[in-house]
Amino acid sequence: MALKYLTQKIAQTIDEELMSQAGGFSIDQLMELAGLSVAQAVSKIYDKSNFSRVLICCGPGNNGGDGLVAARHLFHFGYKPNIFYPKRTKKELYQRLVTQCENLKIPFTDDLSEQLLQNDLVLDAIFGFSFSGEVKAPFDHVIQKLKETRLPIASVDIPSAWDVEKGNIGNRGFTPSMLISLTAPKLCAKQFNGTHLLGGRFVPPELERKYGLNIPPYPGTEQVIDITNLLKEKL
Amino acid sequence: MALKYLTQKIAQTIDEELMSQAGGFSIDQLMELAGLSVAQAVSKIYDKSNFSRVLICCGPGNNGGDGLVAARHLFHFGYKPNIFYPKRTKKELYQRLVTQCENLKIPFTDDLSEQLLQNDLVLDAIFGFSFSGEVKAPFDHVIQKLKETRLPIASVDIPSAWDVEKGNIGNRGFTPSMLISLTAPKLCAKQFNGTHLLGGRFVPPELERKYGLNIPPYPGTEQVIDITNLLKEKL
Repeated sequence: MALKYLTQKIAQTIDEELMSQAGGFSIDQLMELAGLSVAQAVSKIYDKSNFSRVLICCGPGNNGGDGLVAARHLFHFGYKPNIFYPKRTKKELYQRLVTQCENLKIPFTDDLSEQLLQNDLVLDAIFGFSFSGEVKAPFDHVIQKLKETRLPIASVDIPSAWDVEKGNIGNRGFTPSMLISLTAPKLCAKQFNGTHLLGGRFVPPELERKYGLNIPPYPGTEQVIDITNLLKEKL
Repeated sequence: MALKYLTQKIAQTIDEELMSQAGGFSIDQLMELAGLSVAQAVSKIYDKSNFSRVLICCGPGNNGGDGLVAARHLFHFGYKPNIFYPKRTKKELYQRLVTQCENLKIPFTDDLSEQLLQNDLVLDAIFGFSFSGEVKAPFDHVIQKLKETRLPIASVDIPSAWDVEKGNIGNRGFTPSMLISLTAPKLCAKQFNGTHLLGGRFVPPELERKYGLNIPPYPGTEQVIDITNLLKEKL
């Protein structure tokens, strides 16, 4: 049974179910586990001896929140994260996630161009499965910069600016080196041939069956699984 | 520099600082990371091929919450947890943690004696660093049963019924096979000579320095570190 690629609507429905009264999860919990899996995925592929400086580009929503959590865990794993977070939300959770990073002295930066010269890797946590429509300012500029950089880019959930289902329409986005899908890959990931990891080890089997996700078994106690070869075998 | 053993007051102060406005953490986040580290610690020492059935005994407070989170992660790691949770709190977080376990079909049981015959390991998540005074019903009975069992017991944060600082006074508690200290060991752990792991990889270096914790470096991306030999070397 092949791993399922999710439509935007199914991805949103699963997220809502997990956080409904029946699902019982808080966004704090799910974002913590998602961000931790992102940090573990990065450390699996980009060893800190060669990629210690990680520029984390955070968008205004949940994908950006995953990035903030990942930044914190990457710090604890021995990386040197820098955060570019140009459009902050006032929601209490996000303010707390920022505080947690500030308490680790993780630098927040406004100068993306300069940072792209001073880091080894970009973590793209700009847009996730809720994204639709056009890329608005200031992120149009940010996406352009990421299209131009020669640094490897690891994208959280979807490559930012890609359509969640149709992929890199109009070539408006970039192609990351690595994709970290959360819960299950989205349809756009069918167009992605790079290193592909899956995170979000919290889906109850009943929910998995209901949506036919066919998530492969995670190894040991890890929060992330490399599905690159699994997907190639299915082609 | 030796790892610091905490007084009850310092343990409480650190917890409060982490969850203060200045610390920025929610209890959902910290409990998720604590419970995950407990589950990882259990899986390191008690392989699921020999210890698949884990009876998780949960107390009424945060230690019990850590146990509920650990039960969920143990399930995802392939264990078969059973939960004994005789005194539930009505706090919303705990109700949600119960729902999350129920959605995994983890059995909740009322019959401790029977369960002690049908499991391979006990996870003691009854009392943590906030415990003081006498052991009240129904936990006096529970502790007596755990004193009598021949199953290995892994205790979360402190062995339940031990005084947080003075240890197993009046021999009122049991000696677990394994202790999983969270954040830093408490003073009572000086009396413990078994397998000792440390979890809770979320302490900012500034806080660590402020309280002189001297936490050893965690390996890789793990949420837990085995400090058994480290402590023996210091003797």
